[in-house]
Amino acid sequence: MQQPGRVATGWMATALAAFLMLCLPARAAAEDGYELWLRYLPLPAERASAVGAHTKHLLIDAGTPTRAAARAELRRGLEGLLGRAPADATAVDAAGTLLIGTPASSPVIRNLGLDLRDLGNEGYLIRSLRVNGHAATVIAANADLGLLYGAFDLLRRVQTGARLDALDLREAPRVKVRVLNHWDNLDGHVERGYAGASIWDWWKLPDHRDARYIDYARANASLGINGTVLNNVNANATILTPRYLAKVAALADVLRPYGLRVYLSARFSAPMEIGGLKTADPLDAGVRAWWRDKASEIYALIPDFGGLLVKANSEGQPGPQDYDRTHADGANMLADALAPHGGIVMWRAFVYSQHNPDDRAKQAYTEFKPLDGRFRDNVLVQVKNGPIDFQPREPFSPLFGAMPGTPLMMEFQITKEYLGFATHLAYLGTMYEEVLQADTHVKGPGSTVAKVVAGELHGHALSGMAGVANIGRDRNWSGSVFDQANWFAFGRLAWDPALGAREIADQWARMTFSDDDAVAGPVVGMMMGSREAVVDYMTPLGLHHLMGRGHHYGPMPWDAGGPRADWTPVYYHRADRDGIGFDRSRRGSGAVSQYAPPVAEVYDDLARVPDEYLLWFHHVPWTHPMRSGRTLWEELVRHYARGIDAVSQMRRTWMRLEGRIDAQRHAQTADFLAIQLNEAQWWRDASIAYWQSLNGLPVPAGFPPPAQSLEYYQSLSFPDAPGN
Amino acid sequence: MQQPGRVATGWMATALAAFLMLCLPARAAAEDGYELWLRYLPLPAERASAVGAHTKHLLIDAGTPTRAAARAELRRGLEGLLGRAPADATAVDAAGTLLIGTPASSPVIRNLGLDLRDLGNEGYLIRSLRVNGHAATVIAANADLGLLYGAFDLLRRVQTGARLDALDLREAPRVKVRVLNHWDNLDGHVERGYAGASIWDWWKLPDHRDARYIDYARANASLGINGTVLNNVNANATILTPRYLAKVAALADVLRPYGLRVYLSARFSAPMEIGGLKTADPLDAGVRAWWRDKASEIYALIPDFGGLLVKANSEGQPGPQDYDRTHADGANMLADALAPHGGIVMWRAFVYSQHNPDDRAKQAYTEFKPLDGRFRDNVLVQVKNGPIDFQPREPFSPLFGAMPGTPLMMEFQITKEYLGFATHLAYLGTMYEEVLQADTHVKGPGSTVAKVVAGELHGHALSGMAGVANIGRDRNWSGSVFDQANWFAFGRLAWDPALGAREIADQWARMTFSDDDAVAGPVVGMMMGSREAVVDYMTPLGLHHLMGRGHHYGPMPWDAGGPRADWTPVYYHRADRDGIGFDRSRRGSGAVSQYAPPVAEVYDDLARVPDEYLLWFHHVPWTHPMRSGRTLWEELVRHYARGIDAVSQMRRTWMRLEGRIDAQRHAQTADFLAIQLNEAQWWRDASIAYWQSLNGLPVPAGFPPPAQSLEYYQSLSFPDAPGN
Repeated sequence: MQQPGRVATGWMATALAAFLMLCLPARAAAEDGYELWLRYLPLPAERASAVGAHTKHLLIDAGTPTRAAARAELRRGLEGLLGRAPADATAVDAAGTLLIGTPASSPVIRNLGLDLRDLGNEGYLIRSLRVNGHAATVIAANADLGLLYGAFDLLRRVQTGARLDALDLREAPRVKVRVLNHWDNLDGHVERGYAGASIWDWWKLPDHRDARYIDYARANASLGINGTVLNNVNANATILTPRYLAKVAALADVLRPYGLRVYLSARFSAPMEIGGLKTADPLDAGVRAWWRDKASEIYALIPDFGGLLVKANSEGQPGPQDYDRTHADGANMLADALAPHGGIVMWRAFVYSQHNPDDRAKQAYTEFKPLDGRFRDNVLVQVKNGPIDFQPREPFSPLFGAMPGTPLMMEFQITKEYLGFATHLAYLGTMYEEVLQADTHVKGPGSTVAKVVAGELHGHALSGMAGVANIGRDRNWSGSVFDQANWFAFGRLAWDPALGAREIADQWARMTFSDDDAVAGPVVGMMMGSREAVVDYMTPLGLHHLMGRGHHYGPMPWDAGGPRADWTPVYYHRADRDGIGFDRSRRGSGAVSQYAPPVAEVYDDLARVPDEYLLWFHHVPWTHPMRSGRTLWEELVRHYARGIDAVSQMRRTWMRLEGRIDAQRHAQTADFLAIQLNEAQWWRDASIAYWQSLNGLPVPAGFPPPAQSLEYYQSLSFPDAPGN
Repeated sequence: MQQPGRVATGWMATALAAFLMLCLPARAAAEDGYELWLRYLPLPAERASAVGAHTKHLLIDAGTPTRAAARAELRRGLEGLLGRAPADATAVDAAGTLLIGTPASSPVIRNLGLDLRDLGNEGYLIRSLRVNGHAATVIAANADLGLLYGAFDLLRRVQTGARLDALDLREAPRVKVRVLNHWDNLDGHVERGYAGASIWDWWKLPDHRDARYIDYARANASLGINGTVLNNVNANATILTPRYLAKVAALADVLRPYGLRVYLSARFSAPMEIGGLKTADPLDAGVRAWWRDKASEIYALIPDFGGLLVKANSEGQPGPQDYDRTHADGANMLADALAPHGGIVMWRAFVYSQHNPDDRAKQAYTEFKPLDGRFRDNVLVQVKNGPIDFQPREPFSPLFGAMPGTPLMMEFQITKEYLGFATHLAYLGTMYEEVLQADTHVKGPGSTVAKVVAGELHGHALSGMAGVANIGRDRNWSGSVFDQANWFAFGRLAWDPALGAREIADQWARMTFSDDDAVAGPVVGMMMGSREAVVDYMTPLGLHHLMGRGHHYGPMPWDAGGPRADWTPVYYHRADRDGIGFDRSRRGSGAVSQYAPPVAEVYDDLARVPDEYLLWFHHVPWTHPMRSGRTLWEELVRHYARGIDAVSQMRRTWMRLEGRIDAQRHAQTADFLAIQLNEAQWWRDASIAYWQSLNGLPVPAGFPPPAQSLEYYQSLSFPDAPGN
């Protein structure tokens, strides 16, 4: 995107740049990001030697697809890292043996008498032991998938500098259902996708299975992601026809060895659209039978099918309310159809209506809270992290903690619909951490969202976390190298919601770029401040939903048009001559009251509400005195500048890494940071120009006026923005 | 696409296959087709040594982007092929020097006194010479681009087994404008594209230039393609707005060093849509001024901009006839705007109207022939190879040879809109050769289409060949490895329309798979028969346009619906109880009369018309006696069977190459051949079932009946077919 104000480069200058690139030595194998964090480049000799001493031999019975995958990954990884794959062993008869197995598949493991009781079907332990008198490293688990996860864990440790001499660790996921949600349409378009077309080549399936599907499965398994919803929540019933189910089954076959179960988004009205019924009423016997038969048909093809995800009665999608039934009625009907086969329903709580005059932020809670306890055991209610819609910053959704009788699944967005598409660098690990560590206080201090989502706070057997995927057919999967980190962070947090964003960023940076501190350090630094920078230049101090209508690209705070008031920025910022912000206090919409009292009191109190949520919960004068001593207006302008400065700083840091990072990935990110800097400036300028048109205030001293007139920013249009 | 009759594989079987794949050794670098025919894999030691003796040193002044590209490619190629790049030399002071330059850039070349007169600005010579008493290999040219082409030629020779001891060759293109036509929309969709989204990432341009653009340029330069039309002929005027022209300029900057000039498709009504004018009348002074200004604006950004391609008054596109002006009026207006800058207009002759009751096959000729000689010097009229639309087989367009006063540009389709999309193996080199070698007889025997297109028959300075690209963002560029051969063949034939399809196939196979005869031989054998197989199983004996409406996928000979009669199969086959075929003889539509008399007489005469054009030019009874002694019906059924047999044979040949070709590319092609076999059977069965419903004839003895009922085939629908 070329923005005004961008430094124009003439064709001579760019020709020179192209020319200089040609003078570089012929590249052997350019790094284009395809390998993600599984690059397995050679370790320095000393490290390789230390690791190699523990991985001379590999003893594994690779007699199942999943164990074969574990063996293949270890061989691939160690061959890359060390220059040689471990030799296959049939017994532990030498030092440096890597021993991998379940008690059932490996007599040696069985005889070690390891305590695997708390590891479940996906956990594993890794331990340095002596076996038959020889130094060995053991990966043991109750089931094959744990072994595969353990293999990836070991490789991650090798990639990030761990020593292998005295390993003793136990890992098991805290969340049961860890799934990606692909918003992929059957025609290949990805809604809110900024990384090219859908990776699912539906047209050629089932007869051709793209080799890429296996690398997709490997990447997910490396993080512990154990499921994937293949199609958009704005679903097309066609996915449930026999012709498409054959395609889905082919994908399930490819993904199965990696522990990835396949799920589908179901269109609630499918019985009418592809079943020929006259209704989709969830209490209608014919409808119920249709779904039961459909479930049987699916499970005959895919015995381990995961289940269905449903967006119902939301943004025009059909649902049970079309028949005066509740969301519970709808979810339970599907749950009953799936239960005999072990499938689950993920029912989205993202519902709101333009016909409801109440604050949109309140509507999901209002709708779902009364249904608490009325869902079947195999239903998860899937709740977006905040009450609106994946904004750069939102307070946590008040539903977390408010439905003790219902397992609530977290829905994070990995694709950056509202944070600058694929070209803005914004590490979302800090956002995920902020939400997961938020304290609902529903059972006293420490009642974190993480504990709700893990099912721990209210003792649910079923738990889940969903991430709206940022994956497409672009060579680097996510549209940018740094967006790969958001896939990575989601996966790691789904496994353990208590992990720290910084630790995850550090792992990712070391695996993706270099284990050298001089690279990983600056990269982690960039990442950790990046999301706050986006908040600052787009929607500081609790502002939200100020982006362009439809495509959600760029600033459009003036927009009051379109089909629905609750899709317009003016609905959310409520700015006028005197002030700005949405009054959700008890004197306003009362949204604060949806939180537990200790939280509600803080949010309700202008003196206590954190600055970052000020304009989310309160409407205040432009002259409102902030904690800093400055007025709100001054603070707002300062935040925009801070955001831009942070991007400038990231860019400088990145440019200093030139030569330490392979040329192709470095150049792409450098281009993107330049785009981000232009667009941060645009967000700031357009926003300030608009606020000034309302409040008539001058830009505070020391800060420049907007580069262009408000009319100019209002004249820009982007009918060709991607992902729409 | 799953077709009925396909051997179903249960999930257990496919899981087993996945499992077996996992047992393979970890791949080092899987071949995914991205490298095209520029793989530069290590030569056998003996060959490497022989080649290395001639390429020890490299002497080139790489002081321009194009010469730098030549140097980079030689270094990259020789490093890959030989394991070491040549050492840079500053003089010819040792044996085995590769000496590259123009007289202007290289004093050594200048002093050799080579005769470069007939080589033009793109030609080159390669010669083994002694320089300063040392054995040297010289690549010399008048201009840098010739050096780059020469470098690619030398590398092609090394890849295909040539000796380098006694080289003496001169090469210059016979066709001036050698361009790809990308039917790429600005939203990334490619019309008739079967290889993923457009490679042009318009959204990120101009600020980010995908590294892939350079590999695209290298591939084209390796064939001598010297231009590319970036956007769809069904054009969006937005491409001509300043915001998009900046993006186009960025692409031009990337492509320029490789000799690729950028062209655009222009929407004729752009002056109204983006210029605010009330008319697009080509004789209107305001309109003419708008285009002049637009041309100046473009050339200010892109000094070597190639020109404009226009589809006007065709299939709903606007054009000069909207104002009662002629195609010449429209083309000349644009030509006048471009002429001061050296640009050209490529004006498509692909026009026909549903309001014209005359045979569609005649309409382009009827429209354009009277305009002969009325176009400006910088206009090429771009004519599709056949009179209809890129069918598996058509006779050559009667326009070739019929407009001696106008340079006619060939338009071939590389993307296989009508030949099975990306999953059917159909080498189009034989089709291109058939058309180019067709004899128009307009200036006596030997007046081949190739000579018309090269401008030689009627002495035109301007000449051109366009290929509708089959390039997309798929990793292998063309959707399948074998479709890369069609890009390759187009490029080679655009350089020299007299090249043989077999020779081209042999070069491609050796570069793409292996120089081993045991691989290249069978691969070339598959390729050479492949297009005839498609003709046989889709549209034998001159049948045409029998495919599904809109998406053009699969058989739909029964179709008589839709908005236009001239888009229905029944319009073209005219089959009924008694016979089949379109009577274009002098007793019928008279289309034969558009050819020169020696051609027309043959096509008009039922006794002389070649079998392959029988039903194109004649309507005959089902019982019509063929040269074989069989009836038409028997022959038709036999041709379908022959097509299927040929695909079976290709598949067997390919399966025997397993292990001799890298696993990933082998597996993908094997999958595609299985799809092709199923779909060949489908074409045959659906076609026969339909013909039988008309003629009531039994399937001849020895041939099976259709697998399913006609109603079954008629019930199939494919709203999700790609490229639509």
